[in-house]
Amino acid sequence: MIHTMSLIHDDLPCMDNDALRRGKPTNHIVFGEETAVLAGDALLSLAFQHVAISTRNVLPRRVVQAIAELGSAVGSQGLVAGQIVDICSEGKQIGLDELEYIHVHKTSVLLEAAVVCGALMGGGHAIQVRSLRKYARCIGLLFQVVDDILDVTKSSEELGKTAGKDLESDKATYPKLMGLEKAKEFVIRLADKAMEELSGFDVVTSAPLYHLANYIAYRQN
Amino acid sequence: MIHTMSLIHDDLPCMDNDALRRGKPTNHIVFGEETAVLAGDALLSLAFQHVAISTRNVLPRRVVQAIAELGSAVGSQGLVAGQIVDICSEGKQIGLDELEYIHVHKTSVLLEAAVVCGALMGGGHAIQVRSLRKYARCIGLLFQVVDDILDVTKSSEELGKTAGKDLESDKATYPKLMGLEKAKEFVIRLADKAMEELSGFDVVTSAPLYHLANYIAYRQN
Repeated sequence: MIHTMSLIHDDLPCMDNDALRRGKPTNHIVFGEETAVLAGDALLSLAFQHVAISTRNVLPRRVVQAIAELGSAVGSQGLVAGQIVDICSEGKQIGLDELEYIHVHKTSVLLEAAVVCGALMGGGHAIQVRSLRKYARCIGLLFQVVDDILDVTKSSEELGKTAGKDLESDKATYPKLMGLEKAKEFVIRLADKAMEELSGFDVVTSAPLYHLANYIAYRQN
Repeated sequence: MIHTMSLIHDDLPCMDNDALRRGKPTNHIVFGEETAVLAGDALLSLAFQHVAISTRNVLPRRVVQAIAELGSAVGSQGLVAGQIVDICSEGKQIGLDELEYIHVHKTSVLLEAAVVCGALMGGGHAIQVRSLRKYARCIGLLFQVVDDILDVTKSSEELGKTAGKDLESDKATYPKLMGLEKAKEFVIRLADKAMEELSGFDVVTSAPLYHLANYIAYRQN
């Protein structure tokens, strides 16, 4: 292949650091900002359309509930709210409350939507859906706390991505705001709380969700 | 009010001509591009969520069909496709086919979605939905052809917006590509075709749709 990534990169005026590191230019670099924004709109619409068109053997009212859940997860009370607070926090010192708000809205809501949509489509009743929502919220936050801890405790080689980025960019993280040991304790509390929410379910059926919580809590990269 | 629009405008580096004329700065000018893009994502999600949550007294399977219709209207086969072709056509000479593609995808699909969602929610059967879809597609295109004609036949005062913009910007329009008289004939054909599609419906029930087609065809501004 003649056009290696480095050759292509030479022609690119600017690029996200993360994308550069992975060697993949982002959508807006390759296709321009207008097209990238439109691609986002198209994919967002496709997600709702896909759920509406492709769901089989599920009561339509449950499909409607799942679509409402997806809309709420992405919209102004969900992902978009998290991203806005994140943007507004740039270059500012933020506390644990804001940090949790950002992570819950940028990460947890998406895990929550995935888990809750599964619960709804699978015929879960209201109490089960509520438990699974809490489970998902915990593992979403857990994922971010663990990410912060790995960034300061592992080498770039172990992580498969550049370690120490957060310290370098003076980003608010759990180890920074609560100390490394307390952050590790928080991981255990979140994992325990997530797994407690599964206690009302059949052990065999819920085993994958136990494993997922454990995997996220104790992953090494 | 001390901050009149003109005072605010002095501080704004750039602004859409249309927005300037109406005296209202666009979202991305007031809040920045990032926030404007996120507002778009939030509103798009809200639209689907709203249909899912707020629809009353309609069979859930029809709500699901309406959501699929909305997704298809906005997505990569709909509005986004039209916008992409429009962007790619900037500064190029395009023909009637491309012009129709842009208008059908940027305007007609939205009218189509509105009309078809109404037909679905109202319990219309497949043949009725198909007729109403064709009706809506005709009046969407009709709206654009009439817009092009008014731009070259009316004064700014009559229009309530600047006339002759299309000529000035050398934009592809129906009068330009087919001549003013043929464009006027096309308006009549489209209006007739739209109304033909209503012939299978009860006259009283479908009266508002007849009036809408007539209003769009014969509006003067």
